[in-house]
Amino acid sequence: MIIHTKEPFNAEPSLARLRASSITAQPDFYVRSHGKIPQLDEKTHRLHVAGEVRTPLDLSITELRDRFTLSTVTAVMQCAGNRRLDMQAVKPTSGDPWAPGAIGNAEWTGVSLADVLQAAGASAEPGLHVAFEACDEIEMPDEGRFNYGVSIPIGKAMSPEVLLAFEMNGEALAREHGYPLRVVVPGFAGVRSPKWLTAIIVQDRPSDNHMQQRDYKLVPAEMTANTVNWDQGITIYDMPLNSAICEPAARAEMKAGLATLRGYAIATAREVVRVDVSIDGGRNWRQAELEHDAEAPWSWSFWTATVDLPKGEHELAVRAWDSAGQTQPAQPDDTWNFKGYLSAAWHRVHVSAT
Amino acid sequence: MIIHTKEPFNAEPSLARLRASSITAQPDFYVRSHGKIPQLDEKTHRLHVAGEVRTPLDLSITELRDRFTLSTVTAVMQCAGNRRLDMQAVKPTSGDPWAPGAIGNAEWTGVSLADVLQAAGASAEPGLHVAFEACDEIEMPDEGRFNYGVSIPIGKAMSPEVLLAFEMNGEALAREHGYPLRVVVPGFAGVRSPKWLTAIIVQDRPSDNHMQQRDYKLVPAEMTANTVNWDQGITIYDMPLNSAICEPAARAEMKAGLATLRGYAIATAREVVRVDVSIDGGRNWRQAELEHDAEAPWSWSFWTATVDLPKGEHELAVRAWDSAGQTQPAQPDDTWNFKGYLSAAWHRVHVSAT
Repeated sequence: MIIHTKEPFNAEPSLARLRASSITAQPDFYVRSHGKIPQLDEKTHRLHVAGEVRTPLDLSITELRDRFTLSTVTAVMQCAGNRRLDMQAVKPTSGDPWAPGAIGNAEWTGVSLADVLQAAGASAEPGLHVAFEACDEIEMPDEGRFNYGVSIPIGKAMSPEVLLAFEMNGEALAREHGYPLRVVVPGFAGVRSPKWLTAIIVQDRPSDNHMQQRDYKLVPAEMTANTVNWDQGITIYDMPLNSAICEPAARAEMKAGLATLRGYAIATAREVVRVDVSIDGGRNWRQAELEHDAEAPWSWSFWTATVDLPKGEHELAVRAWDSAGQTQPAQPDDTWNFKGYLSAAWHRVHVSAT
Repeated sequence: MIIHTKEPFNAEPSLARLRASSITAQPDFYVRSHGKIPQLDEKTHRLHVAGEVRTPLDLSITELRDRFTLSTVTAVMQCAGNRRLDMQAVKPTSGDPWAPGAIGNAEWTGVSLADVLQAAGASAEPGLHVAFEACDEIEMPDEGRFNYGVSIPIGKAMSPEVLLAFEMNGEALAREHGYPLRVVVPGFAGVRSPKWLTAIIVQDRPSDNHMQQRDYKLVPAEMTANTVNWDQGITIYDMPLNSAICEPAARAEMKAGLATLRGYAIATAREVVRVDVSIDGGRNWRQAELEHDAEAPWSWSFWTATVDLPKGEHELAVRAWDSAGQTQPAQPDDTWNFKGYLSAAWHRVHVSAT
């Protein structure tokens, strides 16, 4: 793993390792944490369900497993800061310099959040929000200490793909991935899928936690850390269309001739319908071959393209198209923001061929 | 109306007229037709429902109105070639040079397609398609004469927003808008919403009509009319995020000082969450004010921005952001295709201020 910070622990795999398997093994799965990784025990851990519900619940992990039907969803989890490195090349941003590895795809097993909310007699009235509280503790200079918390709109919370998960790829969640219980909200930025979950509150407004209100928003390009008005930021839920070249690696020295490019593309709730690759920085394109598991709509698409690389320096580039005919912006300048979120311009990799 | 061709009749309104009302009046609504506008009579017109259905139907307009619940949906209709003019500035394409006026928003009244399919006992099996046949006749050099036909996937056909419509804005459909019966598929390109509808066929494959198979596909940039392989094109259903400046008009001569910019933005099934405007070709941006009717999710958003224009020449630009944090590409070069479809780069308008 490429470790960005040791505490809180933030790390991503190498891109070649990421691209080796469509299901990302737990040890290769990026870790984004905001505080110390909690030491929890599934025998004593409890989940509270409260707020606008008829019957508040207080459940152990065993009770969750026994009372509700288990289901498995294959879904990508990705950090809102994935590929921030490319945005930092334009102008500095806050946050860790994530390469395109702050993403992974896993088979998540757990119980449906909708089932648990229904058991609690939660209202599904539009306009409600489902807030999550977790037991990781965050310390911030101006905010003091607080526990991690975020929320999602009730409509998404009631969707069948949203899980309270115990397992990743058929194994118990590793500590750094949220043992013994985490939320998995397919399609949404990782920030909305808290690890180490302790409480679910149904309420008439988004979470008032720092993480919801004063972070993880898309702010206009002209705002800086000093001038930011968080109320003008757009809360990041669904993630944009994105793609990356995983092989060859950046600055690779290659043999001239036929070369195979490999990577991933992701369109969250939409479908990736085409991936174009270029060996001349986007002047000319050709189409890559796509692999997508039709049974796993929340999964990513892997792509492969064979190109003929002449001797010399090359700028490889990739861009994806989604089922609404949308494609990615060309330049990271076009979407720069001081938090470095949603970096989704064409991914470019410089290589030399001899 | 700005008339592109008289026969078939293809015309769009001026942008100032388009922006004058969030609901577009019938006489201001763009017309895209592929053949002569049929002369039909609602007293004798009939609709057939056949294919993979338990009970084929043969209904008059009166029977449609009497047997099914009427509903009204406010929705944008837009041509896949809207804003083609901007793509043609890069390199010639086929098709009419539509400005950003090949779009309109109306209150459509009719019956739910899903209700009619259910009455016919249609299967809702994924993988099925609902083909539409219409009575406008098209003549093409290599194809001879044929009737207009297209299809949509069954999942969309069964969605409650899809109508068989008789009325636009509380009036009978005008002849050029499909009297006495048309399909309205909110979110999808206009090509999938046939006018002058005569038949609905549930089948295991997309329509084999020319319109479905050898037109209205997104093809890669390197294909031309001579080299096109339609099987590699992506059928255009959902439309991409788009926005346009309606006022001031292109090449307007304005007074220096405060000026109001007005336009529209559309994100089909998503939401427009932000619109940025620029007076320096996209180097600096500010946010426009958005108006959106929350009760009308298939409607467009109107936007307004007041800017201070110094004396001189200016390139005004607009771009929208959707609820997944996606934005439009900067340059029409980035998405050019020989058919000129899905032209959705930043809309730019040159003005001079004295």
